[in-house]
Formats: sequence, C-alpha cells, structure tokens
Amino acid sequence: MAPVTNGRVIFNSIPTGFPEPGVTTVYDSSQTIDVENVALDGGFLVKTLVLSVDPYLRGKMRSPDTTSYSPPFYVGEPIYSHGVGVVLRSENAGVKAGDHVYGTFTHEQFTVQKDLTKFRIIQNSQKLPWSAYIGVAGMPGQTAYYGWKEYSKAKKGETVFVSTAAGAVGAFVVQLAKIDGLKVIGSAGSEEKVEYMKSIGVDVAFNYKTTDVKKVLEEHGPIDIYWDHVGGTTLEAALEGAGLGARFIECGMIAGYNNGGEPIRNLFYVIGKSITISGLLVGRLAHKYQEEFYEVVPDLIASGKIQYKEDISYGLEKVGDVVLAVQKGTNKAKAVVVVAEE
Amino acid sequence: MAPVTNGRVIFNSIPTGFPEPGVTTVYDSSQTIDVENVALDGGFLVKTLVLSVDPYLRGKMRSPDTTSYSPPFYVGEPIYSHGVGVVLRSENAGVKAGDHVYGTFTHEQFTVQKDLTKFRIIQNSQKLPWSAYIGVAGMPGQTAYYGWKEYSKAKKGETVFVSTAAGAVGAFVVQLAKIDGLKVIGSAGSEEKVEYMKSIGVDVAFNYKTTDVKKVLEEHGPIDIYWDHVGGTTLEAALEGAGLGARFIECGMIAGYNNGGEPIRNLFYVIGKSITISGLLVGRLAHKYQEEFYEVVPDLIASGKIQYKEDISYGLEKVGDVVLAVQKGTNKAKAVVVVAEE
Repeated sequence: MAPVTNGRVIFNSIPTGFPEPGVTTVYDSSQTIDVENVALDGGFLVKTLVLSVDPYLRGKMRSPDTTSYSPPFYVGEPIYSHGVGVVLRSENAGVKAGDHVYGTFTHEQFTVQKDLTKFRIIQNSQKLPWSAYIGVAGMPGQTAYYGWKEYSKAKKGETVFVSTAAGAVGAFVVQLAKIDGLKVIGSAGSEEKVEYMKSIGVDVAFNYKTTDVKKVLEEHGPIDIYWDHVGGTTLEAALEGAGLGARFIECGMIAGYNNGGEPIRNLFYVIGKSITISGLLVGRLAHKYQEEFYEVVPDLIASGKIQYKEDISYGLEKVGDVVLAVQKGTNKAKAVVVVAEE
Repeated sequence: MAPVTNGRVIFNSIPTGFPEPGVTTVYDSSQTIDVENVALDGGFLVKTLVLSVDPYLRGKMRSPDTTSYSPPFYVGEPIYSHGVGVVLRSENAGVKAGDHVYGTFTHEQFTVQKDLTKFRIIQNSQKLPWSAYIGVAGMPGQTAYYGWKEYSKAKKGETVFVSTAAGAVGAFVVQLAKIDGLKVIGSAGSEEKVEYMKSIGVDVAFNYKTTDVKKVLEEHGPIDIYWDHVGGTTLEAALEGAGLGARFIECGMIAGYNNGGEPIRNLFYVIGKSITISGLLVGRLAHKYQEEFYEVVPDLIASGKIQYKEDISYGLEKVGDVVLAVQKGTNKAKAVVVVAEE
C-alpha cells in the first residue's frame, strides 16, 4: 500500500488572547506515512480514533520560558492530549494489532509509540464508544471518582452541593452522590444546564446567574459536602452554608484563574465548623483507585447508572475550532474530536 | 461559719473590638455563700482552684443572635472556662470531699455542681501542679495531642511550621513533632518567646514581628504540615510555602478574631499542591483520644519529655486583664488564673 496522508495539528504561534484556529494552531497535511512498512524499532503503530479537548490546553499554548505545572507546547510541533487509538502493528510483546490503547497522543492520524508503559490497553467488554474513555471513563471521570472516594466520606441522607454540576466532572459527582443516597444541590450557568442537572438526579438545581447561592444553601442546607469547581463567592457561600464536620473538595477555582486568585472570605468557618478542605489532584490518587475505576465505572456507564454527554466534532481539521470553543465555553458538553472510525 | 464572699467575673457588655477589663467583663463581689450549709440537693460544692484563660473566650463574647460552634456568654451572667477545683462537700456518691475535679467552671470562687458527668476526677499520681490540668494536661494539651494524632499524618524527616509555637498548644505541638522526628519551624511575637521555642526544640525559631514569614519558609521549607493559630498573612505565606500534599491544621485564626475575619489570599494553592486543611475542634475528637491522652500525657510531663510554661495571675479580679492580654498576645505563656490555693 502506498503511503497515506498523516494529518497533524501543529502549534503554530503563541496566542495573546483566545487561540485562533488557522493561526495559533494549523492543520497540516504535508506528511505521509507508509502504515505497512514504517519502521517500529520495537514499538507499535497506532491509528488515532478519538482525542479529548480540555480547558487546560490553553495553558500549554505559552512561551516555553514561563514555567507551570504542565510543560508547554512547542511552536512547530503537534499539540497533544488524551486519546484512544487502535494498534495497527506491533513489535512489543505486550500489545498486539487490534488492541485499543488509552494515553496521551500527539494530534496526528498515525503515530509510532515506543513506550507501552505510558498507555493503558482498554478491553471495553461493555462496547462503550471509544470517546467514553477520554471523558466519563477517562480523566474527568477519574477526577470525580477518585475525589469522591477519597475525600467525600459521604453518608446516606447527607446533603452535597456541587458547583458546575452540568460539567463532565460535576455531572459524574452528582450521580455518584445519588448512588450513595445523598441529597444533591447543583449549580450551573444556564437554564438548559439546569434541565440537564435535573435529568441526572440533582434534587435542587439552580442557575447561579439568576439565583443567589447563599439563599439556596440557607433553604436547602446545611451542606455536608461541597464539591468546588469555581471558588470565589460561591466558595464563600458554601463555607457559610456548611454544617459541622463538612468536607470540601477543591477541584477547581475558575473564578480566580484570571485575576491571580481572589481572596476568600469566611475561611474562619473552617475552625468553628471543623470543616476539612481537600485539594484534589487526580494524579496523586491514581495508585489507589485506578484499577477499581476501570473495574467499576464502564459497567456503571453501560448499565445507564452513570449518564454522560459529549459534544463530538469530526476530523483533526476541527481541533482548532474546538480548542477555541472550549476556551469560550460554547461547547455543549465534554468536547471530543473523532479522528477516525475503526 | 458565716457566709463568705463568693467573687464572680460577670460578662457585662459585648465588645466591638478588643475586650475591655471593667467594661466587657467586671469583677463582682456582691454575692456571698455559706460553704458549710449551702444546699447541695444531691450535688457537690467545689472550691475553684485554677481557671484557664484562652483565645476562644473572645468568640463567646458575642451577641447571642450569632450562632457558632460554641454557645455565647450572656450579659449579666458569669463567664466560664476550664478549671480545676477541690470538692468541699458532696451528696453524690461518685465524688467526695478532697477530690479534685476538672471541667468547665463559671468564674466564681465557689460553685454547687449537680452533674458529675461533666467533670473528670483527676487522680494526679504524678503530683503535677493543678494548673497543669488546665494547660498542658488539659484542653490546650488535648487540642495539640488530638489534632496532631488525627490530622498531621506526620512522617519522620518532614518539616512542620507552627505559628504561636511558644503558646500552650503550639509548644506542645512542637514537642510532639520533635518526638516524631520532624524539623520544626516556629514563629512567635517576641525575642523571649524565640528563646523559649529554641529551648523546647524548635529548629528554626523566628520573631514574626521582625522576620518575614515568607522568606523563612522559602529558606527552610517547603513545609509538609502547617499548624495554624493565626490565619491572616501567615496563613497566606504558609499556603505559598507548602509542599505537595501538605496538611494544614487550623486551630485558630486569631488575626481575624477582632476584625470580623479577613479574606485569605493564595487559597488556590490548595488545588495545585493538593493541600488538605482541617478545622480542629477538640471536642469532636475526644471520644477517640481522651483516654489515651490521660494515660500518656501526665507521665510525659512528669518525666520532662513534654515541657510547659505558664503565665500565672492570682485572683478572679485579674481575669478581665488576662482575657485582654491573651487577645493581644501579651501574655508570656499559657494564661492561668489561680483563684485559690488548696
């Protein structure tokens, strides 16, 4: 078979504001690959099926001189994110043609991988769409699952408040809380999201743009658990609306991301109410919950006990647009790019 | 014997800023008691020997309309705190004249108590001064001991930062940390306290009034544990100086007690560093550690393995001054009021 195009998404220039499709990232079709003959050198050839587009990618579109928790993208090289691919050929005894692997992929149609330890072979006996493994059964799902198991200390009959409860992580947390028998208060920023929250079991769903968080918590609290994605005044209201011994799980504080971290009032309630606040880094909990996650969660999804929503785009050419949509918040759900069908 | 004066300390008015001796609390000598004949009604008569004065008392000097973890003082009634007294007469079979009891006492020279379950009879086979049982072997000691055992997750070789490390709780925490093999950074507000910190094993002792906390933590951190008594900018510096997975134990935020609770910057580090912040209420941990405490701690004190210091005042008339000194931090050590010798 003749070489075929190996399309790629290249990081082309550092954005100053929002990323610009075609400027900060470009789709490049100049490279080809001979999938039958390309040298593997002990590695394996993967065809990319699905790629995740997440808010954190913007942080990597920076000057390499700026240090951060995650390395930068380099101009002229492909961007990368979590994805699932199918193995076409392999010289590694641990993986064979037809296996599906989950891990970090450069945004290319085909890649030759050398290090199997960086990937997980996905069995998928439940026949979930592969995109599930980069969302509800991937990093966002793990964030929800690990954090809930480690920090919530949830007891039946308790009340949890989840901010951004229509998001990929929040919606999963809501459903874990319902499985555990809790009353769930959820907030989001649109009426459409309020309806979605209700559909996944949120007992008290409200739009924080039109309804005062503090009043909701006064009426439906005190809260035993707060799952935070936003920080700011919502966190302050949660501290005020918390009950004795409440557990706060800090998954994000987006309210402070663009102003250097605003100061938080009401922190003194931590003592008077003996609140525990836990900062959640999913990677630090993987050793404890990862195997359990892959044993339990795909079945929960297959049985419909955990529902999820995706906003799917097709083709690597669309990545630039999706990156921008995620930054502007115009995506409708977890953003996924399907690069190829099997 | 004729009735004798039963002096009392009355909560007289709610302070707006610092408490004022003679205004917010007054010493009242208008009442008398006939210690030989006062009716016990099945209870027991206690002569107050020593009373503890602690930072938390300020929180009780509030409007009863403001709810909190601990009930308010009521204007016109005596204030109360932990103390030790000697039983003079008893109609309760569980306690006899000559026994020493530890518990919460109204600030009066003599009280008739009805409910023995609220007191602990102190054997004191180690012959410690009674004041020890309201300090190092009392509530402050329990606060340190329970909190350290429950929340520190201390590992040998780690670094702990203790603010107010010359205080009753702080000094105990320092010594527990040294027993566990940690490096200890301690702050306090005078050179005298710096010397005291060094004498109990603090490795890096500094005066926060003359030395920048942030710089100390940059040089001697990152910190694995922060034991907080002060909140405010010290807490902000500790968040900045914390290492991955640090544990913060919130025992007090005195910097905010007299200004309504200032907002705290840098809280976003909780996520990036996966910090856990635990609000410590000693009463919530008593069921777990109280018996162990009384088995272990008096012996540690008697053997000199846990040292302590007291700032003793004499007479109920001094309580108002001592309350203020504790809020201002001008006391030299654990504030104790000796009401009567045996």
